[in-house]
Amino acid sequence: MNRKQLFDLIKQKQTYLCVGLDTDLDKIPKHLLSEKDPVFEFNKQIIDATHQHCVAYKPNLAFYEALGPKGWESLQKTLEYIPKDIFTIADAKRGDIGNTSSLYAKAFFEQLNFDSITVAPYMGEDSVKPFLKFKDKWVILLAHTSNIGAADFQLIESKANGRRLYEEVMLRAQSWGSTDQLMFVVGATQADKIESIRKLAPEHFFLVPGIGAQGGDLELVSKFGMNEQCGLLVNSARAIIYASAEKDFAQAAKREAEKVSEEMKIYLNKYL
Amino acid sequence: MNRKQLFDLIKQKQTYLCVGLDTDLDKIPKHLLSEKDPVFEFNKQIIDATHQHCVAYKPNLAFYEALGPKGWESLQKTLEYIPKDIFTIADAKRGDIGNTSSLYAKAFFEQLNFDSITVAPYMGEDSVKPFLKFKDKWVILLAHTSNIGAADFQLIESKANGRRLYEEVMLRAQSWGSTDQLMFVVGATQADKIESIRKLAPEHFFLVPGIGAQGGDLELVSKFGMNEQCGLLVNSARAIIYASAEKDFAQAAKREAEKVSEEMKIYLNKYL
Repeated sequence: MNRKQLFDLIKQKQTYLCVGLDTDLDKIPKHLLSEKDPVFEFNKQIIDATHQHCVAYKPNLAFYEALGPKGWESLQKTLEYIPKDIFTIADAKRGDIGNTSSLYAKAFFEQLNFDSITVAPYMGEDSVKPFLKFKDKWVILLAHTSNIGAADFQLIESKANGRRLYEEVMLRAQSWGSTDQLMFVVGATQADKIESIRKLAPEHFFLVPGIGAQGGDLELVSKFGMNEQCGLLVNSARAIIYASAEKDFAQAAKREAEKVSEEMKIYLNKYL
Repeated sequence: MNRKQLFDLIKQKQTYLCVGLDTDLDKIPKHLLSEKDPVFEFNKQIIDATHQHCVAYKPNLAFYEALGPKGWESLQKTLEYIPKDIFTIADAKRGDIGNTSSLYAKAFFEQLNFDSITVAPYMGEDSVKPFLKFKDKWVILLAHTSNIGAADFQLIESKANGRRLYEEVMLRAQSWGSTDQLMFVVGATQADKIESIRKLAPEHFFLVPGIGAQGGDLELVSKFGMNEQCGLLVNSARAIIYASAEKDFAQAAKREAEKVSEEMKIYLNKYL
């Protein structure tokens, strides 16, 4: 999916919600545990209930890897089940020397057919570039993350140019890939900085985790983060998919997704 | 495995070689492709041939993930096959918000029973700590990697204290975990710096990739990197496992592993 298609999808659905599929056997409703593949069954019902109210799904790889080969199968089935017009994000935070990153790219872009993958920038350009060689596939590079530890290294200021590490990452990476293949992760918990972060990359999409369970402010993020093509995918996982732990979990997820998307519709009209 | 056991193993075997299991269907001998599980069959024969000449095995996760659920199964079988007295490293370069890192830790330490995992530091303390909660399990944190892109961000000097990013990572991380649970990745291609890098973490083990195909210098690494408990695991993958692409691949791998280990024996006597 390219940037224009993504923006068209956002306009058509009037939402920039990404639903995080952090599917955890300890948290899904008990009655699903007797299914042959409880993780896929849960995802399937969540997707059925929410796909009209979101533009992206983001499975978090850790939840699938924790289940071994079976988890990988659940992930594969989930990817095949997601409607083709919805953007998919492998939240994998990979990044390694060139030949290894190439293999990760193949795993996620070809084997699983994800539209995008989150990548960690620590190892630099040659660890990121192999992911940028696939047409209409995206790298979503960690910039300023939503967790407390974001302050440990991402905020270090460079002696040479005064830039913080996440700023340097965002500026350098723009020479590696175009606005049609590179997004940045910017935590919603950094809402106070999102205005200045937007200036660093005016045209790029941002994947924004951290609203919902992590407490980020959707209006602030939207007001200061939106650009002319929306430029935002805001993720919510736990608050939506675990809205209920009972048999009504899918309807509850639908209600939550609808609620967030109604809020997003307002911001699209107000700030786009 | 704890640090004393690892050092005992090194003394007993007179080697600090780690064999990288970067098993690639495009590179393994053609006659194995008719096996039911070619990747496991290759690994099995490599392990049989080399286990007396190394102290660690390091499967690179990308090579297994690129094969989907089947790759995960090959990995699981490989882990079960590696002799229990040999140290195992999941070269996975993971790192995410706390609850996600906890799941990765479970996947690699409990589900697959690895002794250690490589972790990327970009997201800071709360992304690393969940991996440090497992007894006798290790985090191997990326510090100064072996690739060209290492220079992009790892060498940035801090305005606040003049430290380079990799130095800051190494110094900060030492307050997160002890020398019995934390190692650092230091590329052999940084051999000219290894003396100063050793001063930053005198007692920690370093995992050193980059000899062999990447061209690092084993004697320099050993001379300047060794500490009183050896403190080095030096990885070689392609130069050993792909020493021959014919039916004699296992014997060829054995010869290569023996050759490197004989050199290591000299350095252990000279520099330990």
